Amino acid sequence: MTVPAVALTQVRGRVDSALRAFAGQQRAVLLSAGDELLPGIEAMTGLLAGGKRLRPAFCYWGWRGAGGPDGPEIINAAAALELLHASALVHDDLMDASDTRRGQPSLHRQFEAYHAGRRWHGSSGAFGMGMAILLGDLLLAWTDEMFHGSGLPADALRRGRPVLDLMRTEVFAGQYLDLVGQAAGDGTLESALRVVEYKTTKYTIERPLHLGAALAGAPWSADAAATPGGLVAAYTAYGLPLGTAFQLRDDILGVFGDPAQTGKPAGDDVREGKHTVLLAIARARATGQQAAVIERYLGDPLLDEAGTAEIRTVITDTGAVAECEEMIGRHVAEAVAALADAPITSEARDALADLAVAATARDG
Amino acid sequence: MTVPAVALTQVRGRVDSALRAFAGQQRAVLLSAGDELLPGIEAMTGLLAGGKRLRPAFCYWGWRGAGGPDGPEIINAAAALELLHASALVHDDLMDASDTRRGQPSLHRQFEAYHAGRRWHGSSGAFGMGMAILLGDLLLAWTDEMFHGSGLPADALRRGRPVLDLMRTEVFAGQYLDLVGQAAGDGTLESALRVVEYKTTKYTIERPLHLGAALAGAPWSADAAATPGGLVAAYTAYGLPLGTAFQLRDDILGVFGDPAQTGKPAGDDVREGKHTVLLAIARARATGQQAAVIERYLGDPLLDEAGTAEIRTVITDTGAVAECEEMIGRHVAEAVAALADAPITSEARDALADLAVAATARDG
Repeated sequence: MTVPAVALTQVRGRVDSALRAFAGQQRAVLLSAGDELLPGIEAMTGLLAGGKRLRPAFCYWGWRGAGGPDGPEIINAAAALELLHASALVHDDLMDASDTRRGQPSLHRQFEAYHAGRRWHGSSGAFGMGMAILLGDLLLAWTDEMFHGSGLPADALRRGRPVLDLMRTEVFAGQYLDLVGQAAGDGTLESALRVVEYKTTKYTIERPLHLGAALAGAPWSADAAATPGGLVAAYTAYGLPLGTAFQLRDDILGVFGDPAQTGKPAGDDVREGKHTVLLAIARARATGQQAAVIERYLGDPLLDEAGTAEIRTVITDTGAVAECEEMIGRHVAEAVAALADAPITSEARDALADLAVAATARDG
Repeated sequence: MTVPAVALTQVRGRVDSALRAFAGQQRAVLLSAGDELLPGIEAMTGLLAGGKRLRPAFCYWGWRGAGGPDGPEIINAAAALELLHASALVHDDLMDASDTRRGQPSLHRQFEAYHAGRRWHGSSGAFGMGMAILLGDLLLAWTDEMFHGSGLPADALRRGRPVLDLMRTEVFAGQYLDLVGQAAGDGTLESALRVVEYKTTKYTIERPLHLGAALAGAPWSADAAATPGGLVAAYTAYGLPLGTAFQLRDDILGVFGDPAQTGKPAGDDVREGKHTVLLAIARARATGQQAAVIERYLGDPLLDEAGTAEIRTVITDTGAVAECEEMIGRHVAEAVAALADAPITSEARDALADLAVAATARDG
């Protein structure tokens, strides 16, 4: 791995500490209900130890860009977004029947194995599912607890709440559209892009930036994002192309990524039959023979190394990867350009330019 | 059905209206993401239309008892607990593989049928599961949005938050203990009672009362509940026996209840192999022959009408039902007695006495 941008590492260590402190408090509450809670606590702690902390970084720099001072309070509030994200990962892995997350067995698989190892009653799969649902719910509920316990003044929290609320409703809407789109077999580029808008662009970049801005006192509203000249609109102008670039990088890593780097098995997106933009472009560009290879492997749960290699070659041969790389470069440049005249601090301008590159780098 | 207590009906209609208004606002947000969201909105709206609103009623009367004035704000804040509860029901039904809820197909079954009817790709069961996870998550996230948008002053909300936070962590801890207890085959009375304490007593009665009290300005802390003489301790003294009575009534309805009244198929608790206090008592009192009948049917997914009738007879013959009815009467009396010297308004004292009876009545 190359050295990540300072804008990201500067926030990451402090977010890690804030999450450890929060999880430590909850550990005491949960253990007072019973020692049986310990494996659940440990599974959540393990999951929360990983991750690039992108959403907290965007929230933090959204705050700093709007003139908010550095301090532990904004780190706590930003770190709350990682609880929401961990919840989404636990539930996503369950829905996608994913075996791995951040290089470890996914949470439902951990508890499936836990149940099987003890020869307990009932189905190990159902037990793993139940644990993943409950622990994901707990992480989701904790988002608000950490946000409101951040130490930020009540006025700031009141300004931030509508953004946090909208951000959550939007990410669920995106996941819903994804689930329905995959089931209905709606493999169009337009449908894939709408899922990207809700599941990735708004959730990972635009709303975390808006949240930081609103917490710092920038006047936020759904309309402010569409009114040129203001801070909130500048964040949107930066976030929209960057979100697309970020998702395209994720699409490429989902097919071509090294498991040591992605924490997921090679070719996982193909195995799960994900309707990504990369695959939509590949299908649109494919010859009849190439299309047949894609259809053969897409969604095949038994996809092996040879099959992964074959579909990688075909996707590359269609020119879809080159087209995606070109799109990533263009979108990152567009995002950085949108900052040029933004009414933000120069420190934040530099940090957000760094973040745009770090969030879309080939080394993930 | 007999006429329900005024204390409950007075709150129910207003909570219904508050939930309809909130769901209406969210409908617009979700539809702006795509028309595909409509079936999800309708499923949530249908679920939210039902229910006795017990938790909002306890929250409302907890507030009134502490001297809080009547008004739409406390109704909104109390109604937020129904969003949390609806989320728990959706996820519980999925974990328990329950087919029915409030007389309708459970949410995951609705979307399983929706998928099957459209001959969509993939497994209908996985689609139903995914939709239930997502919609349950959305309802859970909305709890905080409705609570903070209730119109109560910022100071009141700040006082109430720790109670809402603890209440959620506790109910997940209770569900976790229930899941682990059932898998580990821990069928002792002690273990069943601990699950009742967390899943029912604290969640349905004690914490909603505490939430109302804290919102109204009563000094709340984890210690206050254990310090005799104060308002918060009086609510706990009322809530603990009432929670046990409430759960025992639920246990009896789960085996003997009329589907038209419970909204669940007859004998559902037996079919699902629930480790209830009623069944723990029945097992402890059973002769060898009676125990064999209980073991044969408990957890049998194919339990039919004849089997339900047989296990009902056996449970009654052990004397477990009579013992539970006696315990219910004793605990309700204890709950009402705890109010006698409580430092609350006389109107709230009468309403809470009514609620104790309404929450544990034979007609459910």
